[in-house]
Amino acid sequence: MALKSFIEVHPDSHFPIQNLPYGVFKPQPNSSPRPGVAIGDYVLDLSEIASAGLFDGPLLNNSDCFLQVRHSSLSTLSLLFRRRLSFRSQVEETTEPTLRDNAALRQKSLVPMNKVELLLPVAIGDYTDFFSSIHHTRNCGIMFRGPQNPVGENWYRLPIAYHGRASSVVISGTDIVRPRGQGHPIDGTPYFGPSLKVDFELEMASIVGPGNELGKSVDINNAADHIFGLVMMNDWSARDIQFWETVPLGPFLGKSFGTTISPWVVTLEALEPFACDAPKQDPPPLPYLTEKVSKNYDVSLEVHVKPAEHKDSSLVARSNLKHLYWTLTQQLAHHTINGCNLRPGDLLGTGTISGPDPDSLGCLLELTWNGEKELSWNGATRKYLEDGDEVILSGYCKGDGYTIGFGTCSGKVVPSPQ
Amino acid sequence: MALKSFIEVHPDSHFPIQNLPYGVFKPQPNSSPRPGVAIGDYVLDLSEIASAGLFDGPLLNNSDCFLQVRHSSLSTLSLLFRRRLSFRSQVEETTEPTLRDNAALRQKSLVPMNKVELLLPVAIGDYTDFFSSIHHTRNCGIMFRGPQNPVGENWYRLPIAYHGRASSVVISGTDIVRPRGQGHPIDGTPYFGPSLKVDFELEMASIVGPGNELGKSVDINNAADHIFGLVMMNDWSARDIQFWETVPLGPFLGKSFGTTISPWVVTLEALEPFACDAPKQDPPPLPYLTEKVSKNYDVSLEVHVKPAEHKDSSLVARSNLKHLYWTLTQQLAHHTINGCNLRPGDLLGTGTISGPDPDSLGCLLELTWNGEKELSWNGATRKYLEDGDEVILSGYCKGDGYTIGFGTCSGKVVPSPQ
Repeated sequence: MALKSFIEVHPDSHFPIQNLPYGVFKPQPNSSPRPGVAIGDYVLDLSEIASAGLFDGPLLNNSDCFLQVRHSSLSTLSLLFRRRLSFRSQVEETTEPTLRDNAALRQKSLVPMNKVELLLPVAIGDYTDFFSSIHHTRNCGIMFRGPQNPVGENWYRLPIAYHGRASSVVISGTDIVRPRGQGHPIDGTPYFGPSLKVDFELEMASIVGPGNELGKSVDINNAADHIFGLVMMNDWSARDIQFWETVPLGPFLGKSFGTTISPWVVTLEALEPFACDAPKQDPPPLPYLTEKVSKNYDVSLEVHVKPAEHKDSSLVARSNLKHLYWTLTQQLAHHTINGCNLRPGDLLGTGTISGPDPDSLGCLLELTWNGEKELSWNGATRKYLEDGDEVILSGYCKGDGYTIGFGTCSGKVVPSPQ
Repeated sequence: MALKSFIEVHPDSHFPIQNLPYGVFKPQPNSSPRPGVAIGDYVLDLSEIASAGLFDGPLLNNSDCFLQVRHSSLSTLSLLFRRRLSFRSQVEETTEPTLRDNAALRQKSLVPMNKVELLLPVAIGDYTDFFSSIHHTRNCGIMFRGPQNPVGENWYRLPIAYHGRASSVVISGTDIVRPRGQGHPIDGTPYFGPSLKVDFELEMASIVGPGNELGKSVDINNAADHIFGLVMMNDWSARDIQFWETVPLGPFLGKSFGTTISPWVVTLEALEPFACDAPKQDPPPLPYLTEKVSKNYDVSLEVHVKPAEHKDSSLVARSNLKHLYWTLTQQLAHHTINGCNLRPGDLLGTGTISGPDPDSLGCLLELTWNGEKELSWNGATRKYLEDGDEVILSGYCKGDGYTIGFGTCSGKVVPSPQ
């Protein structure tokens, strides 16, 4: 914990030196966006560190990847962050002593996180959302296909997914406008108006690093090399709009009004101490989805809701990334098996991460059984979200004396336009 | 036809002065991409015209929109091209006489089209594909839902669509690698290998101009102002992959291996003389989809296939854009009703445009009834596409002594990687 010498990092902080997640920020409202690394309560401004000549490793020499935020920089940056050990030793051996002894540079390059504006960490070319939790899939299936055959035969054979909307992916803290749209007909005419069933979905998402060329597939055993890191994600859903429009081409406007992600990309290397076995898959996956080592990560996930009428939030659900049936690497390899090209910054959501227990369900659709049951959070009763409700997702791994965390992924539902 | 004085435009050319479609090209392999306008057999290099100071209208003064190809330029450019009359008078009054009298500028700015590389005309942020032809929908419905109830109740109420994959949209002339993937199980195990059912889909697509802010909707009667123009589109499909994966979240890898568009964006203003009434909609659309004037465009569409074993192509289908049930403006307004933001350069496909006749079906799925019937093109028999087959889509409107055309949208299927 070399940086402890001059940067105090609380053991509960999400951002100790073991994490070093990547983000993009503006130190002042009129600054240009720049890449940074979270450390304790600070953001380390990588453009200042690079300008000071402190990054001199082979990958970094003469690279402008810290100076500009754009697609083409991301591939380099993700490689760097993926080789986290060398990045960390660079920080420990060069950056840290220099910073400690150079007050002017420290002043310029270490910015209090609560003073900066955090932006989307990447330019998202395409956003894909998977459907990888068996618990979520089974619950939805029981509700809509019936208890006899809740999970389709294809689900056990491939990681089902749909293309999502990239334009409406927003950074944590952005308000979500309640969508208007059509719902199932009442007396022969479709409902039209503000959605009556606005929901959250507890997800995580991979951010693509290098990516692949169109027409070439990524081998399953190399797939991890294409994951820059993970973020928290709330795939806001309007269930009434979604269920009316969804046959036969899948979710569209029921999802595309907003998707929130957390600002810090946590690398797989930072999560490696928390790797765990993925669930046994039966039937066994086809060869192109069979991994030499098939792993999940033990990331504790929480959903808190602050109802409009309360000052405080209530814990609504607890789940864990380890509940995924299809692994992150299987998702990525499957995505490219047809030759589809992934580009740096693409976002691959896991789908709602529900666990096996009643309090580990990752969306209100499951928690209220599509509005059949009412929930009470300290007396605030809900079937779906109301205007003013704020949803806060968080994720963390507990290490020995430190925490690897994702910060928060929050958003408040605000009223539809008139 | 002012430019006729020095640029010969054949009456069958797709690009008379009545068209002036927008594209992006490289005059030399190592040039930077730049915007251009097609005129006869030439491309007019707008960056050269702007550098020569010939664009001096209020919109163009000091604008760098002709010098750079990027998202932020597109909004300005689309406004300009949308106000086609003023653009045309600019070309007629300033550009044409200057060009005619200035051999050096003519040499620099008028490039033979067959010498240039045409690129994607826009940076596509998001790609959406609709399902707006009743004939296509009904045929698919009869095949997969049965003849009793082939079209879902929701279809008549809203323009059904799915999010597509933007990364794999390619320019006409790009080879399409046959995708690998899973198909329906045979003896209990899914098929895996090169798709056995590679198909084309005859479509057109709107390119978004200005777009809208997240959380705000575009009024149906202003929706045309948000369409920069149209291109031809081939939404290549692997039917075996698509049908196995598609329940419950819609098409994914069965589509995302490639989508081809034509290089020239033809504005709605150029198509205006060919506007025609849209079909009467019954039930009447909800108010947010009800237009003061509801129109389609009479664009003749053709599919030619050059089978691998032939030198020449055969006409495979003829259709027309006027067969759309949901209009382009209804598609766009519906897309934003939930607050989803459209960005300059977004691509909105119409879905397969089939007509009512047996020879007006826009894909092999319909033409061969999912492989039940074999087609013969001058003796080359096909159920689906084989390696080496080239598909050429074209579209045009016949005016009085001139043609407004879209050029071609072509692609050849090449073998899967081993």
